[in-house]
Amino acid sequence: MASHGFKSQALQTNMGVDFVISYRFARTDKSVAIAKFERLVEALASVGLDTEVRNGDKLSVLLFVRVASDEHLFGEVYRSRVRDWIHGVRAAAPPKETREALEGEPLYEAERLRIIYQLITNPVAEGGASITPKEGEWENVVSIFPLHDHAYNKDWIKKWSTSYFLKTEDLDDIRNRLGEKIAFYFAFTQSYFTFLIFPAAFGLSAWLLLGHFSPIYGIVSAIWCIIFTEWWKHQEIDLGVRWGVRGVSRIETKRKGFKHEKQITDPVTGEKVLTFPSTKRLQRQLLQLPFALGAAVVPGALIATCFGIEVFISEVYNGPFKSILVFLPTGILTTVMPILSGILTNFATQLTIYENYETHGAYETALTQKIFVLNFITSYLPILLTAFVYVPFGNIIVPYLDVFSLTVKPFAEDEKQLQAPKSGFTINPDRLRKQVIYFTVTAQVVNLGMELVVPYLKRRGFSKYKQMQSDRAAKRSGTLPSPAANDPPEDAAFLSRAAKRSEAELDVYDVTSDLREMVLQFGYLSLFSVIWPLTAVSFLINDWIELRADAIKICVEMQRPTPWRADTIGPWLDSLSFLTWLGSLTTSALVYLFSNDGLGPDGHPSSITGWALLLTVFLSEHLFILFRWGVRIVISKLDSPGLQKERRERFLVRKQYFEESLSLLERMPKTKDVGEKVEITRENLEEDARRKSLGTASMEERFWGRQRGWRETVAVGRNLIEKADAETSPKRNKSQ
Amino acid sequence: MASHGFKSQALQTNMGVDFVISYRFARTDKSVAIAKFERLVEALASVGLDTEVRNGDKLSVLLFVRVASDEHLFGEVYRSRVRDWIHGVRAAAPPKETREALEGEPLYEAERLRIIYQLITNPVAEGGASITPKEGEWENVVSIFPLHDHAYNKDWIKKWSTSYFLKTEDLDDIRNRLGEKIAFYFAFTQSYFTFLIFPAAFGLSAWLLLGHFSPIYGIVSAIWCIIFTEWWKHQEIDLGVRWGVRGVSRIETKRKGFKHEKQITDPVTGEKVLTFPSTKRLQRQLLQLPFALGAAVVPGALIATCFGIEVFISEVYNGPFKSILVFLPTGILTTVMPILSGILTNFATQLTIYENYETHGAYETALTQKIFVLNFITSYLPILLTAFVYVPFGNIIVPYLDVFSLTVKPFAEDEKQLQAPKSGFTINPDRLRKQVIYFTVTAQVVNLGMELVVPYLKRRGFSKYKQMQSDRAAKRSGTLPSPAANDPPEDAAFLSRAAKRSEAELDVYDVTSDLREMVLQFGYLSLFSVIWPLTAVSFLINDWIELRADAIKICVEMQRPTPWRADTIGPWLDSLSFLTWLGSLTTSALVYLFSNDGLGPDGHPSSITGWALLLTVFLSEHLFILFRWGVRIVISKLDSPGLQKERRERFLVRKQYFEESLSLLERMPKTKDVGEKVEITRENLEEDARRKSLGTASMEERFWGRQRGWRETVAVGRNLIEKADAETSPKRNKSQ
Repeated sequence: MASHGFKSQALQTNMGVDFVISYRFARTDKSVAIAKFERLVEALASVGLDTEVRNGDKLSVLLFVRVASDEHLFGEVYRSRVRDWIHGVRAAAPPKETREALEGEPLYEAERLRIIYQLITNPVAEGGASITPKEGEWENVVSIFPLHDHAYNKDWIKKWSTSYFLKTEDLDDIRNRLGEKIAFYFAFTQSYFTFLIFPAAFGLSAWLLLGHFSPIYGIVSAIWCIIFTEWWKHQEIDLGVRWGVRGVSRIETKRKGFKHEKQITDPVTGEKVLTFPSTKRLQRQLLQLPFALGAAVVPGALIATCFGIEVFISEVYNGPFKSILVFLPTGILTTVMPILSGILTNFATQLTIYENYETHGAYETALTQKIFVLNFITSYLPILLTAFVYVPFGNIIVPYLDVFSLTVKPFAEDEKQLQAPKSGFTINPDRLRKQVIYFTVTAQVVNLGMELVVPYLKRRGFSKYKQMQSDRAAKRSGTLPSPAANDPPEDAAFLSRAAKRSEAELDVYDVTSDLREMVLQFGYLSLFSVIWPLTAVSFLINDWIELRADAIKICVEMQRPTPWRADTIGPWLDSLSFLTWLGSLTTSALVYLFSNDGLGPDGHPSSITGWALLLTVFLSEHLFILFRWGVRIVISKLDSPGLQKERRERFLVRKQYFEESLSLLERMPKTKDVGEKVEITRENLEEDARRKSLGTASMEERFWGRQRGWRETVAVGRNLIEKADAETSPKRNKSQ
Repeated sequence: MASHGFKSQALQTNMGVDFVISYRFARTDKSVAIAKFERLVEALASVGLDTEVRNGDKLSVLLFVRVASDEHLFGEVYRSRVRDWIHGVRAAAPPKETREALEGEPLYEAERLRIIYQLITNPVAEGGASITPKEGEWENVVSIFPLHDHAYNKDWIKKWSTSYFLKTEDLDDIRNRLGEKIAFYFAFTQSYFTFLIFPAAFGLSAWLLLGHFSPIYGIVSAIWCIIFTEWWKHQEIDLGVRWGVRGVSRIETKRKGFKHEKQITDPVTGEKVLTFPSTKRLQRQLLQLPFALGAAVVPGALIATCFGIEVFISEVYNGPFKSILVFLPTGILTTVMPILSGILTNFATQLTIYENYETHGAYETALTQKIFVLNFITSYLPILLTAFVYVPFGNIIVPYLDVFSLTVKPFAEDEKQLQAPKSGFTINPDRLRKQVIYFTVTAQVVNLGMELVVPYLKRRGFSKYKQMQSDRAAKRSGTLPSPAANDPPEDAAFLSRAAKRSEAELDVYDVTSDLREMVLQFGYLSLFSVIWPLTAVSFLINDWIELRADAIKICVEMQRPTPWRADTIGPWLDSLSFLTWLGSLTTSALVYLFSNDGLGPDGHPSSITGWALLLTVFLSEHLFILFRWGVRIVISKLDSPGLQKERRERFLVRKQYFEESLSLLERMPKTKDVGEKVEITRENLEEDARRKSLGTASMEERFWGRQRGWRETVAVGRNLIEKADAETSPKRNKSQ
């Protein structure tokens, strides 16, 4: 009963543990493992961290870490805030008294965890313990992760699953718990979800009233895409200010894997820096061209082949098993594509590592760009092929699809079943729509399922496998105790839940893959939704679930992520802009080509003319650019609470500086007095007259000496004006 | 003889005069004029300026101003530098001791003049005398201008007219004398001139070897335009840093003519500010649409009409006086166009004033945009009409030109001479080239001449007129003295040269009109040079002279300009980018249309197909965008002395701040001691054991109490590792 009490309590408490370090020594010699472990614990103690060691999984121990010395933590907080201020993230320098600074602006949980993580991983020179998981000296440290806050997680999921919309406060909550990087993903998805309501409603009406390929829907959809993309850019800034992270992407962090080639003296700082020649990097970057080509051609060829086979089977072949054989290409694609995709992604990662970027940001950007190219091909090429190759050139191409007859030859009863009609073949206009529906409904649902179910099954299978293994081992040796054997009974439940038995083995959450998913989804909307206006409706439903599913995924399927800061969704923003722009081309082309259900403007594909298509696309693109320019101007004029807050802070800092600096000017003598004083001391004039008569005064001195003080100038001026007036007055009178 | 000596000396010295204020009281009552004059002199004295009044031209006096009190000047310098620092123009705050600051960084002449000008014109609240020429209370102040430095001017013109290239030091010199705004114009023109060498050389070879409308020339020219535009953007930043003005365009100055409509409390500063509702401004800005339409249609119609008449006369009409009549449309254009242009420019100014911008920068931008649209129409429309209307559609249009027969009817001998051939009319492919040559050679030469000759004639004529007038007046009244009558004899020569007799009457130099000229010239190169590859050669010669002519113009024809700061050529940069982009469209279209001397790809205009033209343009534009993107990336990677200097300064400031702030952290206790201390005091453990046995310790306390200090953690860890190793060793041995 007591143990039961402990257990339920153990689900609530994290025992004040800040981070758990999993130390694995399976492949290390005992004495080396002990020595390294000692160094690890000592390093942690040196930065003010308390440690408790417990038995881990087989051949591993778990080190529980918490902050013992606030001084070290405060030092790191202060250092981080000063760095922020210098990079312009904060408007004012933090107060020099750290305790005071922390009282004025307490740490939120994500900030605390981030700073402790930095305390553990930063180089010694920067005040950290320099523990780099899985690298070099610390290869035994397999992971460093915080523990889930189960009580909060439960509330979170409960709250979200019962509310239609997320409020900004909900996002603030995520930011406080999981850091800005993940909060930005949720904020983006939430914004996107909210924006989707309009195209979903409009799409539904368009579907009911306007039919497919409606130019009106196309224009509205393109406008919506522009507004959403530009608005998000604005919103990003606003959120960045709200969360106090605007500009953090400017703070560059050195990439750990960077290999320097030479040491130069930085012309700016005068320090020795390790660099890599940028010409050499450029040469390596040029490998991106063959890579992009390969990434386009290999999956492209696969997709095109499967597409050809499918068209052949469905449109040409009319032998037996047609209804089954028609799934053959889909089968090929679903098995081969993930493998190919995996290989290419791996290749992209290797290439990016080889490009040897100095900063983490540059590496991420380069990798994201490559991943986007890969995903672009696999996601959109099938539809592009149907729309711009199959339909316009189907008549020409289909007869040549005989080559694919090999694939179904074994099933055909006679040659005739394999022969394409030499003429009179008509393309199937429904194919395009079916394809879009597949990608925007079926694939999304499958994807969502995979995201939740696969990790679950993996987790289950893994734990079962482990159970079996330890059972077998127990049978064999008879004595091998479970890792929990020497846990103190009171901690057992906590240890079992928290770290050893489950959390240590979970996957690490990667927010970019979720972001990629959203951006690719946006791509379908931007590029192809004119084919099937209900696309947005499907996405609206999907994304409502997606947001909640991602929350569950983070809480249940993954280790609690280490919070990171970000002030943008990063390179995906460029992908969004690119897709919006490309949408202006595809939508207009699709509307022109298919405006009469895939049969050209007057019901026959042959009436499609090249110049009209090109003119449509050309005009559409330029209208797009013009409209985007307008939207940007309007949005740039929008004010927002975040921007206002930022300006207010900067104004106050500026005002303070200005007042401090200018208070000096107050003490200066008023020169009006000086002017009058000169007039009073007539001695000066006498002195001057003497000098003049002696001829020692320079021409300049004489020039300025004629009128001493402003009152003399006025007197002379009065004379001049009166004289001039007197001279011209008779004339004036005469002319009157 | 003494007076001769004075005279030659007077040409060298400015008598230490900083500014001359011309005070005119022709339309003011005598007593009011005197009262206002008194206020003027007093206001100047109150900001520490010395004054000397002399008789001016009829019904005016000239007030010579120099700095009397350095404190006021220093105060203004300091204020200006603090403002710069706060806006990020300077990396560090200026030293608080002004005299020290000025010794460390002395004023250059342009800065001195600018600051004195600000001292005169700034509002009283900001420490100025609040004298606003020609406005409100100060309508009698017609101008405030510095005096020319004749010795320097002479050297300047001599130096420039004997050197082929201008060095950066020459530009620095201009910046020191005339301020950054004018220096930026010269720097831009000089960069452009240097860049022109390449297209001039390449154009010459293309003209000799490739002929007209060469695709190779077109591509090279487009690439050159992109590189020049992007490079200039980079260069601008570099120069801005070199001259210490980078970011000054962010310092917004309130526009004097701004009319507020309501007073609101600024949410940022909490101050009361006078604003104008932006929705109302937007409504007024919408008037730009009809304006742009009007500006396009009215001169467009005029140009098209003259063009039609010209085509009619030269191609259709074959009666008498043809060789003379053919100049009729040019005559109409040259007389009507400047008037129309003047009206429209005036209209544009009125519209911009009506739009009621708050800052000077916003006003300038809005006006420049309108002026660019106007100039675009008048400069490029004739060629665009020939290229894209006359040539492709000439066959269709020419027969309808009968309407213009009216213009030459009086001269025709019979109806036949006025009738267009109903068929068989062939367009004149040479017309386009002739037109380009006219605009890029003749018009440039004429323009250059006008710039120098017209002001000269104007000046001459004006002084002659004045001479005649005063002669007549002298005859009539017999007594009217020349304005110089009561000059002290020694100052007479100086006064006569400097201010009264000439400089006060010169025009005010406007740098934007010179910039506009250069940008429009660049437009011909970007848009049409493929028609006549020698364009760049003509411009190269023209611009060498132009640079010198502008120097002479500033020195001789104009008042010495008040120096202003700038960190860019402003909105003209956008015009450059726009022209570069448009060039990618026109060049590709021209190459396609005329690649066989205006007769289409296979020698006949009818073979030109719409889709091929559109495809050419479409591809060209996208290649352009792609290439520009590449150039931008490459240029963004370029380092430059200016950028390096800036980064060095910022680094040093940052380092200093960082070191100051972090010195606090040094004083913190090393926590390693803390950890060991805890281990030593065994009493803690006993205390803990006691609390535990009493059950008062929380679960958390018990968890963290098991291992006290890092050495205990190591000890426990060693046990765990050894045990795990011992348990698995037999298995390990077995598996071996």
